[in-house]
Amino acid sequence: MAPGGRRPGRQGTRAVILEAARASFAEDGYEQVSLRGIARRAGVDPALVHHYFDGKPALFVEVLQLGRDPRGIVEEIAADGSPGHGARLVRAFLEQWERAGGEDRNAPFVNLVQAVAASTDAADGLREFLTERVWSVAHGGDDSAVGQLRRALVSAQLFGVAWDRYLLRLEPFASASIDEVAAWVGPGVEAAMAATLPESGRPRPDPQPEPG
Amino acid sequence: MAPGGRRPGRQGTRAVILEAARASFAEDGYEQVSLRGIARRAGVDPALVHHYFDGKPALFVEVLQLGRDPRGIVEEIAADGSPGHGARLVRAFLEQWERAGGEDRNAPFVNLVQAVAASTDAADGLREFLTERVWSVAHGGDDSAVGQLRRALVSAQLFGVAWDRYLLRLEPFASASIDEVAAWVGPGVEAAMAATLPESGRPRPDPQPEPG
Repeated sequence: MAPGGRRPGRQGTRAVILEAARASFAEDGYEQVSLRGIARRAGVDPALVHHYFDGKPALFVEVLQLGRDPRGIVEEIAADGSPGHGARLVRAFLEQWERAGGEDRNAPFVNLVQAVAASTDAADGLREFLTERVWSVAHGGDDSAVGQLRRALVSAQLFGVAWDRYLLRLEPFASASIDEVAAWVGPGVEAAMAATLPESGRPRPDPQPEPG
Repeated sequence: MAPGGRRPGRQGTRAVILEAARASFAEDGYEQVSLRGIARRAGVDPALVHHYFDGKPALFVEVLQLGRDPRGIVEEIAADGSPGHGARLVRAFLEQWERAGGEDRNAPFVNLVQAVAASTDAADGLREFLTERVWSVAHGGDDSAVGQLRRALVSAQLFGVAWDRYLLRLEPFASASIDEVAAWVGPGVEAAMAATLPESGRPRPDPQPEPG
């Protein structure tokens, strides 16, 4: 039963479940959340949660898409080449996490990491989300070898900074302002966006057996 | 009771508990491990585990020190400046994880991440371990602002690459050889080791009130 006793329509029910899931993941962390608990919070029958969503990992990924609109990040990635775009991307990335955190700035990223470390399904979901919703938009789906390398290098930098700041709480990243961190990390991100495949990094041809 | 019924001495008991803990964390992951289970595996009374170790996070950190001798990494960091030192550091870092993994290459890093995301005590332990056992050796304890910044930038790169490879399983990092990843990431690590504080990254002086 929805709050106030109104019967939501199909889209309404799905949205109510998503909102309950978002709040549950944010407050309790991935591991503690059950589909039954989400149903209770949403005021719907647990069967409806199973009807709309294919399990906890799928619901988690849906919540990622709801809660963290990546357009700001996408715009920064697409702004490739203009001065300071690396720092702007770092700032957009960190702001996404801290805006979602409210009083506990670290919680959203810590919850994501818990989910991804606990479940390969959640890790697959995050990877697909990044690939299909973020990078494909920013680069028009450039899937060349060098395009993939640049994405992986940028991903490593951004998640590495979040790891230092929110999880390891390593100084100076832990206490600095977002602008300071962006100024420190921006140049490395710009280098990653412009990376090329080194000689030794190219796929090596299979050794050719001598004929005869 | 120790295997074979021998009564180990004090050092022996501690070592038997540590080995049981190492195996338990590696096989089951941080969350699933209990001190009682470790005691059972070690064949000792649970009170002895509490006698030697101050709780699960402390034991986890001890296991990190036992299982991952950081000297190889430290030597690479200390080789600062020689050609290719960034790539060598990346290689040493990844080899530590994969050597510990045996059949499941990803498991040691995933287990570490689970632990750090589940427990701020484990995160504190890892940070102190890195600070006291690794960086203090590599840099003779250089704790200047720029030294701290370089450590944080290098940490972000290394953990970011491990995140991409072992957790997110993002290509091309997931399937490439260690040498390939090292060649790709090495230049960024070298840049991080040589980073300087940008103007905007320096601590700002407090605003000075006008006298009078």
